[in-house]
Order: sequence, then structure tokens, then C-alpha cells
Amino acid sequence: MSFLNKEICDGDNPDLTEERRTATFDTDRMAQVIYGSEKFAARRRQITKSISRIPALQDTKPLAFMTREEKITEACRELDVLSDHWEQLIYVNDEEEALHLHREVIGMEGHPFALHETMFIPTLVSQASDEQQEKWLGRARKREIIGCYAQTELGHGSNLRKLETTATYSPSTQEFILHTPTITALKWWPGALGKSSNYAIVMADLVIKNKSYGPHPFIVQLRDEKTHQPLPGITVGDIGPKMAFNGADNGFLGFDHFRIPRGNLLMRHNRVEPDGSYLKPPHAKIGYSSMVKVRSRMAMDQGLFMAQALVIAVRYSAVRRQGFLEDKSQEVKVLDYQTQQHRLFPSIARVYAFIFCGLETIQLYEKLILDVNKNGDTSGMADLHSLTSGLKSVVTHFTGQGIEQARMACGGHGYSMASYISEIYGVAVAGCTYEGENMVMLLQCARALVKAVELVEEGHPEKLSPMMAYLTKPSVTVDLTVGPEAYVKIFQLIAKKQAFKATEQLHKFMVAGDSRDVAWNKSAVELTKASRLHTRLYILKTFIRRVESITDISVKAALTDLLNLHLNYELLDVASYALADGIMSSTQMDFIKNQLYSSLEKIRPNAVSLMDSFQFSDLQLRSVLGRRDGHVYQNLFEWAKSSPLNQSEVLPSVTQYLKPMMEKSKL
Amino acid sequence: MSFLNKEICDGDNPDLTEERRTATFDTDRMAQVIYGSEKFAARRRQITKSISRIPALQDTKPLAFMTREEKITEACRELDVLSDHWEQLIYVNDEEEALHLHREVIGMEGHPFALHETMFIPTLVSQASDEQQEKWLGRARKREIIGCYAQTELGHGSNLRKLETTATYSPSTQEFILHTPTITALKWWPGALGKSSNYAIVMADLVIKNKSYGPHPFIVQLRDEKTHQPLPGITVGDIGPKMAFNGADNGFLGFDHFRIPRGNLLMRHNRVEPDGSYLKPPHAKIGYSSMVKVRSRMAMDQGLFMAQALVIAVRYSAVRRQGFLEDKSQEVKVLDYQTQQHRLFPSIARVYAFIFCGLETIQLYEKLILDVNKNGDTSGMADLHSLTSGLKSVVTHFTGQGIEQARMACGGHGYSMASYISEIYGVAVAGCTYEGENMVMLLQCARALVKAVELVEEGHPEKLSPMMAYLTKPSVTVDLTVGPEAYVKIFQLIAKKQAFKATEQLHKFMVAGDSRDVAWNKSAVELTKASRLHTRLYILKTFIRRVESITDISVKAALTDLLNLHLNYELLDVASYALADGIMSSTQMDFIKNQLYSSLEKIRPNAVSLMDSFQFSDLQLRSVLGRRDGHVYQNLFEWAKSSPLNQSEVLPSVTQYLKPMMEKSKL
Repeated sequence: MSFLNKEICDGDNPDLTEERRTATFDTDRMAQVIYGSEKFAARRRQITKSISRIPALQDTKPLAFMTREEKITEACRELDVLSDHWEQLIYVNDEEEALHLHREVIGMEGHPFALHETMFIPTLVSQASDEQQEKWLGRARKREIIGCYAQTELGHGSNLRKLETTATYSPSTQEFILHTPTITALKWWPGALGKSSNYAIVMADLVIKNKSYGPHPFIVQLRDEKTHQPLPGITVGDIGPKMAFNGADNGFLGFDHFRIPRGNLLMRHNRVEPDGSYLKPPHAKIGYSSMVKVRSRMAMDQGLFMAQALVIAVRYSAVRRQGFLEDKSQEVKVLDYQTQQHRLFPSIARVYAFIFCGLETIQLYEKLILDVNKNGDTSGMADLHSLTSGLKSVVTHFTGQGIEQARMACGGHGYSMASYISEIYGVAVAGCTYEGENMVMLLQCARALVKAVELVEEGHPEKLSPMMAYLTKPSVTVDLTVGPEAYVKIFQLIAKKQAFKATEQLHKFMVAGDSRDVAWNKSAVELTKASRLHTRLYILKTFIRRVESITDISVKAALTDLLNLHLNYELLDVASYALADGIMSSTQMDFIKNQLYSSLEKIRPNAVSLMDSFQFSDLQLRSVLGRRDGHVYQNLFEWAKSSPLNQSEVLPSVTQYLKPMMEKSKL
Repeated sequence: MSFLNKEICDGDNPDLTEERRTATFDTDRMAQVIYGSEKFAARRRQITKSISRIPALQDTKPLAFMTREEKITEACRELDVLSDHWEQLIYVNDEEEALHLHREVIGMEGHPFALHETMFIPTLVSQASDEQQEKWLGRARKREIIGCYAQTELGHGSNLRKLETTATYSPSTQEFILHTPTITALKWWPGALGKSSNYAIVMADLVIKNKSYGPHPFIVQLRDEKTHQPLPGITVGDIGPKMAFNGADNGFLGFDHFRIPRGNLLMRHNRVEPDGSYLKPPHAKIGYSSMVKVRSRMAMDQGLFMAQALVIAVRYSAVRRQGFLEDKSQEVKVLDYQTQQHRLFPSIARVYAFIFCGLETIQLYEKLILDVNKNGDTSGMADLHSLTSGLKSVVTHFTGQGIEQARMACGGHGYSMASYISEIYGVAVAGCTYEGENMVMLLQCARALVKAVELVEEGHPEKLSPMMAYLTKPSVTVDLTVGPEAYVKIFQLIAKKQAFKATEQLHKFMVAGDSRDVAWNKSAVELTKASRLHTRLYILKTFIRRVESITDISVKAALTDLLNLHLNYELLDVASYALADGIMSSTQMDFIKNQLYSSLEKIRPNAVSLMDSFQFSDLQLRSVLGRRDGHVYQNLFEWAKSSPLNQSEVLPSVTQYLKPMMEKSKL
């Protein structure tokens, strides 16, 4: 007999099997929707299966039991094994397959080649001249050298122009002299810089004849290729333990008048001639679009982080029993409590929303890149840049919240590292800070919004980009019962009102005599609110579009339930705006609540299957609570027994301190 | 020259000194308000000073660099040193002083005597007969034995009645046979159970002649007093690493028909006679009031956790500079950004609110205990019980949020363990789960609310306790400009409306045929909302009362600014209720926002001093970012250099894997 939910196996915890039998859709088909194509969804499963057949690709013990040193060594061991199986496991040039392979085998806590692949090589490709690529790119790709990307400094994050590391050109020797003039100028945070890399791309302020030319990329050898010792003039090390990512050796780096040849300035776009003359790049906006790509990508990755936490929490909630409802003979599954559903299901909806939004945004980005290449039209990119700034911020914020709620929904056991949710949280929530701090990002998004509002106020609504067009929509009364489009309309009106309100406040302060910067700061919180609404509107619209496009009827029906939950949950969350501006009535608010609660009931039978559809392997989840088979308790016990503290019966703390203390008392 | 802020020292980071000079109040006086008395505030400082003079009471290295085993050993070492200095440092019987001493020296990550002091000894005091106390209490107090308290099981948390561990009486041998019948019956989570304790109070289902009498407390020896090996029939160990508290050896415990003498049932209130006859306790509500005490206490402790995170974040925000406002010659302190203020200051207000609320609730508890003892009047206790259930839930939730926002406000460095904020978060957020899971607690609070609403609806408003009296308040229009009382009125109306709405929904489902349990579950989310509003109203009122009672004018003025921020922030946060029910107009909402933003500006010059007033030592904070002297960057570098990964230049991962990989590529 075959079931719609493909995870059903003999011998599983019957509480979980019971859930899977109530699936109203085929989980393989849902996986196709989640991962964007039938082909990739199938390849994922295939790769997972192949990995499971190679014992050397399993963790030697749970990562939670390892020191940082052990985690790093374990990741290197797995990378080493992978390099022998690479071609057998995936199509070597398929980035998505490689990503999936890494996620399963290495996991999310980091590894020494992460920056080598995502930053060192790509920067060589985009910034090194042909001659330079000849020299370094091949070696990098063959992993003869390991590189990273060193930009942020101890005292300097987002503000690139304030980087203090200098690269002063010396025409007499045709060298750049790299130097760290102050302690705040130490490179700080770059991944894999601390102990693993022997090369780095270093961003430093190019100085020629006492004139600063701003930050430029240099390729720098850090360590001796034979001994791996730092070269003289270089101070390099690990920055210490972090909230998560402890399998990564984020590092610090200081230079003491360290000399590199002129040819180490990456010169695809800029050149410094032997005599010190500087040739400017033809166009300055290099890198702008790569930020857009990274931030679009983040919406998907964050969605997948939250999905992992939710798989764990939803499965465990179907296994954990506590308290009674109707039937007094057996405790109920905690998933039957409305409070538990309300804690988890809106996050399930957000997971799907974020992933769909990420998929669409990446496609939009790729289309725009084609436009840029075809006719040099970069207009759409500015819009997408501001949008993805907001998106990155909104998605990481809600993902963090959702993961923590998932953890708490698992009660005490959620708090154990055996759940692995706190680790997922630590990794995901780093996204609130990296790639642009969230508040800064929201204000970047607001910049575009204010500009758009000003266009409308100046009588040029025709100049608005399609993404801003809603700023001209007139107020209307909306009948929520007609469906998703009504929710969009209300959201548009709310977002529009807030964008105008924030802009109005900004202008008011300016009229009263403040400079734009000061007025901007005084309006900043209102501006961030406008950005959030703008972004959430976009997420909501992409969710609707995606669901509408689905052809499989049962998949579409299940996602429609999730969409309805999302629409009502989101609108309720921003209800104060709608109510204050008379856009929504209190009767409508009651309607939304009722819709919300009935959505929870509708989703209940599909909850486990909606999360099973992500088809994360047990290897990738690394969670005792989230095991596919639902056999939680005996495995928690096995896990605990093998933990480091249980390897000896009497700890040194007892021998050295507690025993003598007790003995002394007896005298 | 003397300053109002007592933390000013020569040689400090001038950016921090500048902040301290703008204090409008005396930080010592503020400390008196925070810690409840002039005497205790002074004692705290004195103890801190004494500790600083004993080098052996400093951590041998940062806790973040230690394995769990090392953390436990370190805590034991410090306990050992403390035992030699106890009488020199504190008044030995003063609990608050002992607590302060522990917080500074041991910190928050746990230690092997935590449960011995807070649960093992108190349970012996309240539950053991005089004869039993004679036998064990003295030994426990002298630390001849180390005990813990084992209640929760692998498969059972809040629902005490479902505990599976059995204690079956055998009249023939006059013994109880402790047994763990299933894997879910393993005791799981008790602090210090895993490796440190040799005794435990074990809660087990008392079974006599096949009849279950429910959970009873037994004192059980777990390990040999000489060898510290587990006794035959006992399986005991550590449950493994957790999100935080990794200096505690939370444990598991299983019994295989383990026999203990009849005299090991704690018999102060219940007895089992040699023949197996069971004598009931005279009154059943033992322990009820201790939960109230613990949960009141939590409001204060959580406030102090959040305070620690905020000291760190606020100080660092006064040292970190980034970007420009008016003056283009120097980057501004990030504390000057409105978004940063909005992230931190409302949490500062909450810290004070929670601490004041905790203080008042503990006093209320103590007064009620006197009433109970004087005239057996337990009526007030029920009210306080439901209130503290809500309080525990609301406070822990906002504390978690506030700490995470504080961490993110520190940007990348907040994510480093050098900030220590993620550790504070891990410790604080455990409070969302322990002492009653937050959702369960909110629903417990709701039970009392619904009962009160039903009283009103049944025409018996006179039976309402004072805490519920607002449920009879008629709707009025409120002028917010008159001050705090107006905010209270609005909050009362909102809380009342929601309590009635939720009750109405509950009744509606029951009328439609659902059992009360089922209807309750279908209304659960609305009920939790009512509980939250009820609790937040209480917090708000205690904050107002406390500020009104302060005599020092400048302290009162600074706290009034915080109170105003709190009132406006809270009301804005629940605005949708007020707007939906026509309790507040949209004009009033704009008023609230303006008040909120101007509060931020008012608080700005006092921000550092408001947090300095907590007078946490650097030892207690354990944060490089939060150092009193503000010398953050050089100390981040020193911290990193001494981290474990930097103790060798070439890691095993490089020698074993990366070097061979690179070498192979070169061939």
C-alpha cells in the first residue's frame, strides 16, 4: 500500500505514522514545489540516499559533544572523504547539489572551505585580471591554497569607507605595504581566517603618494605553504567562541608593514602602474548586484533554517503527550492544543512564504541581470536592492522568533542540545547581523520608499516603479470575504499610509530646521515601520502568486490553507495600523480572528506532512527530538549516555573538591 | 570632584565618562531603589569590593573557553575557596547576600550545590519529620552529603499525576521498592543529579497493596559516600549539553527495584505505618505557596538578567561609533541613533518595571503568609497564585526578547561569546520553560480570570478580589494627557474587554455542545491574550506605585521618564485592542507615538547611568563589551588571543587533513 506521505515506514512510532496517514497531499509533489523543480527534488533524495550508504560521511559523534577544535577537525575529515566521492555523489558543477551535499554531511556549524568557495574564488573571478587568474585561480580551484575574504575590522562593520587598514604603494620597490595602524584596524570576523586559510583577499585603503583611493582588494599570502606558520609581519588567529558557527575559525589579522608585490592588487577593474599612477575603473557599481543576490538567497536559506526547527517541533509535538481533552483514557498529543498550533503553524506558513519569496526574488534578480547585460538597463536593480534590504531584515527577524517558539514548544527537551534547535537558532539569527545589520537594512529600504513618496507628492506618480505603484492606490472599503486579493488591498493601504506618515514626519522636522540627516534620525523608527510593511506586503503577494500557479490540486489545497492562515495572521499582527486609519473595522478584526482559528484546525491533520515535505534527512537535522521515526525517548537516553560527562563515573570536580569537602565535614 | 554617577574613574574610555557626567541623579541612590534598601545596596558594594581583593575568587579563565567538565570543576573550586571566606564576606544567614556572592563569584551557568541549597534542604525542612531532620538535615547543612530534587521524568513534565516512577511498599521487609517501569519514567533534568549529588529527594508514586496514593517525596541515597559510585540498582548520569547552564550536571536517574527503608518516605505530613496503613495529611495544599514565592522571585531575577544584557549593550553603544549625523568630522556613538534607543530603552524601562513588580509581589506574598498563619485566611493566595503564573510567563517572554535585542544592538561583537549576552540569553530564556511552561501558566492565570468574569455575569461583582475589581469598571473616554492614571484606565478597559470576550467565546462553544475542556482548548489563544493583558496591567500599576513612593527628587524624575516611556510603549503595543473597541482614537495613538519618541530623547543622557546603577561588577558581567572602563577593543584582542584555538599555531585539522589535501593537489 502506498501513502501520500512518503516518510511512512514500518516500525515507526505509531503516533507519527497516524499523523502521516492523514496527509491530504503527496509529499514528493510538495517537495517539488518547495525546491522549485521535480528534477532537483528527486536529485536531493537521490543524493541523500547515496550519502547514507557511506558510513564515513556520518558524524563520528554528535557535534554537541565536541570542542571547537574537534568540530573543525570533523568538518575537515568529512571534506576529505567528500573529495573522494564528489563526482559519484553530485553533478560537480551544480551549485545547488553541492549545497545540499554540504548541508547534509558538514551541517550548519561551518567549515574551513566555506569562504574559499563563496568569497575567495568568486572574488578572484570577478576582480582579478586574466594574468592574475592564471596565477591564482587554478591553484585555488585545485585547493593547493585555501583562501578567505578579509574586510570587516575590529572597529568597523558596515561603513566600508572607514576601514583603517592601509596598503601604501612604494614605487621604488613596486610593492604595497600593508599596515594595521591601530587596534581597531585589525581585520576581525572573516570566516576561516583564523587557523585554516593560508591566503586571503584583503580589503585595504589604497594609498599612493599620501592620497587615499579608498578600499581595494589585495591577494595576500598569510602563511608559509609548507609549515603553515604565519609569515613575518603577520599576526593572525581565531577570534574565539561565538553564539554558534563554532566549526568555523573566524579570525583576526594584523599587518606590521607587510610588503606584497604590486601585482597583488586585484586589477581587473583598477590598476596601479609601476610609477604609482592609478587607473580608475570604467563603472563604479561593482558588487552592488551581488549583494542583491546574497540577500535574496537569504530569504530561502532562512526559510530552510526555520523549516528544520519546525520539522523537529512538529514531529515531537505529535509524539509528546500531556493532559486530557475529551478522552480521559489517554493523554493527548500536545499538537492538539490550540496554543501549540498557534505557536507553530503560523511559522510553517512563514517558512513556505519565505521560500516562495526567495525563489521569486532570485528569478527576478536573474531576469534583471539579463536586462542589464542586454541593454544596460539597471533601473530595476535599484528597486530590487532596496526590497532585498528590507526582505533580509524582515525574514531573519521572524525566522529567529519562529525558531525560538519551535524550541519552546518542545518544553524542557527543546532546551537540550539533543533537540539541536538552539544550534539552528544560533546559526539563523546571525543573519540578523551579517550582510547588513537589520536596522540599517530597514532604513536602506526606507530610503527608496521615501523617494517614491516624494515622487507622488511632487506630482510624478508615473515615475514610480511597479513595486511602488501601490503608493498611489486610493482608499477603498474592502470586503475580506472575497479572498486573498482583499487582504493585499488592505495591506497596500496600510503600507501606503505608513510610508506617507513617516515621510511627512521627516519633512516636518526638516521644515522645523533640522538637516535631512538629523530629521531622518528623528523619524527612523517610523521609517523602519514603513519598510517592514512594504516588505511584508511583498512577501504576501509572492505567496499568493506562487499558490495560484500550482497545478496539483491537493498540493494547492493544502497550501491554500497555509496561505489563509498567513493572510489572517499577518493582518492581525498589523491590525493597529488598519484600525487607526479606519481601513479595517473591529467587526473585520473579529472575522480575521475566527478565520485564523479555523485555519489552525484545517492545517492540523497536515501539519506533520507539511514539514515532512522538506525531506530533511536525520543526518541533516542532527536532532534526537526530530527523528523521522519518532522514537524519541530511548534515543534521548542513548544520546545522553554517550555524552562526555558520562565517560567517567567520578568527575575530577568530585575527586578534587566535593569529596574532600564532604570528608572534612564529617570530622 | 564628585559626580552623581559613581562609576567614573580616571583612565576610563572618555566616551563612557562623557555619558556618566550627564547623569541627572545619584547612582548610589538609584541602587537603593533597585535593591530595595540603602543597607542592602551598600552591603552589595562592600561584598563586591571584598571579593575583588581575593584573587582565588576570580575565574581562572573565561568560562566561554572551558569545556563543561572544566566549568563544573571551576565552580567547585570557587565554592571551596568561598567556604573558607564565607563568614568574612557576608552575614552567613542573609540569603540575599549569599545570592549576591554566588552571582559574582560563580556566575549564572550553574554549580553542584544549587539544588542542594534551594530544594534539597528546604524540602527536608518542610517535609521531613523531626526524627528525619535529626538524621539528615544536619548532615546536609554541613555538606557531609550533597542532595538534589528529582521530580520531572523523561516523558512527564508539568503533569505531576502522570509520574511513572513507583515506590511500592513491602510490609514484610518494611521497605519501599523504587522502580522505573519504562524508559519514559526515568527521572530527567534535575539539577546536580547527574554527577555531583550522592543523595536526592525523589518524587515517586506511592503504591501500597496495589493502590496508588500519588506522588510522595522520598529521600534516597544514590551513590556510595566513600567511592561516589552509584549504588547497585541505580542508573544515574548527566543528560548532556544544553543551550546554557552547562556548569550544571542536570541528570537522569533510573531504579531497578531499588529498596529503601520505610523511614525514607518524608513523613512530616503523610505517614505509612509498618503494616502499610496510610495516614493522610491534615491539609492538602502544601507547596502551593512556595510556587507563588518562586514565581514572584522570578520577576526580579529575570529583570536582573535583562539588566546585565542592557548594561553591556548600553555601555558598548556609547563606545561604538559608526556613521554621521550633524557633525561630519567624527562618527557618532551608535546610542545616538533613534533605532538603537528604541531597541534598548523600552527594555531598560521593563527591567525597572519587572524588578519593582517583583519586589512588591514578594512583599504581598509575605503579607499573605502572615495572614494565613494568623487567621488561616488563604483567599488572597489563590489570586496571587494566578497572578504570578501570568507574571512568570509575561516577564520571561519579554526578558528573552529584550536580551536578544540588546545582543543584536551590539552588532557582530554581540554575537561573540566575549559579549557574554548569548549566555545570559540562554540562562534567562530557560525561565520560559521551567517552573511551569509559559502557555500552561497563562492558561492557569486565565482560569482565575474566567472565574471572575463569570462572577460578574452571574451578578456577584462583590465577590471579586481587589485584583479583579477592574472587571466591573464602566467604559469611559480617557484623556491621556492627565498622566499615568489615564493609561491605567485604558489598560483596564482593554484587559476587561478581552477577558469578557474570551469568556464569551468559551461559553459559546459550550452552548454549541462542546465539553468545557474542549471549549477551553478552542478558546485558548484568546484566553492567553486576556492573561497577558491582565498581567501587564498589574506590572504597569506596580511601576506607577513604586515611582510615586520615591522621595529623592532627581531619582524620581529619571524614573518618571522611564515610566512614561513604559506607559506609551506598552499601550502602543496593545493598541489594536484599544482601537478595535473604540477605547482609544487614532489621534490618541499619534499622541502616544510622539510621547514615546520624546521619552527616548529624554532618557538618552541618563541611559548609561540608569544601567550603571545596577552596580554589577566586571566579574559578575563576565563581558568584554560591557567593561566598566569602556576599553573594549584592546580587551577583545587580549580575550581572543588567549582563546583555546590560539594555544597552538597549527591545528590538528590542518596537520591531518588540510595540509595533505593541499600537498596532494600540487602533485
